[in-house]
Amino acid sequence: MKSLLLVAHGSRRQASNDEVRELTRRLAARAQQDYAFVDCGFLELAEPSIPEGIQRCIDAGSREVVVLPYFLSAGRHVAEDIPAEVEIKQQEYPGVSIRIAPYLGSDEGVLDTLLHCATP
Amino acid sequence: MKSLLLVAHGSRRQASNDEVRELTRRLAARAQQDYAFVDCGFLELAEPSIPEGIQRCIDAGSREVVVLPYFLSAGRHVAEDIPAEVEIKQQEYPGVSIRIAPYLGSDEGVLDTLLHCATP
Repeated sequence: MKSLLLVAHGSRRQASNDEVRELTRRLAARAQQDYAFVDCGFLELAEPSIPEGIQRCIDAGSREVVVLPYFLSAGRHVAEDIPAEVEIKQQEYPGVSIRIAPYLGSDEGVLDTLLHCATP
Repeated sequence: MKSLLLVAHGSRRQASNDEVRELTRRLAARAQQDYAFVDCGFLELAEPSIPEGIQRCIDAGSREVVVLPYFLSAGRHVAEDIPAEVEIKQQEYPGVSIRIAPYLGSDEGVLDTLLHCATP
């Protein structure tokens, strides 16, 4: 059983965190064929944390977790901080496969979405 | 003649700013049928600024500029700071149409792109 964990930075502004939670609900509806459980986690400033989010996936029965960084650039958060948070749970659960997917901004699909935004 | 200005936050990390500039080049190649000129601008920490970016569009001959926020959430930057920067140039050039497009994170296309990222 496979889970998807959307990982965002987290914000002091609650509406931004709620925007991520709402996106997660829409993602869950779209991803339900491939992922039995979809949730979100935050690097900082909001809850659940990334390790807590991974724990929720495991508690839901997952042996496979895909961590999906909702980030636009390949900065320290994507390159170091997210892998470090994931590693905490990977060490705790060596039998669970936890994979970090490419971050949003690395995907060519962003170009199509930007062009769609630009079109009146 | 129409221009497209991709507007990003800007980062202390130069590689992140270069990532935006590289995305702008790919966007220009994809958007050339609709936009004769495509450039980027940064809210802070990198150059050109948003007013400077709009000026480049006007200097290139544009009477119509679409400002496209490369942002994931509808925070203060999207709601207040970008409009305030745009307003500076709008007042200076009342004859130029400057429109702010919806921000990236508001578009449903982000869901498709996220699902594409998650797929191995």
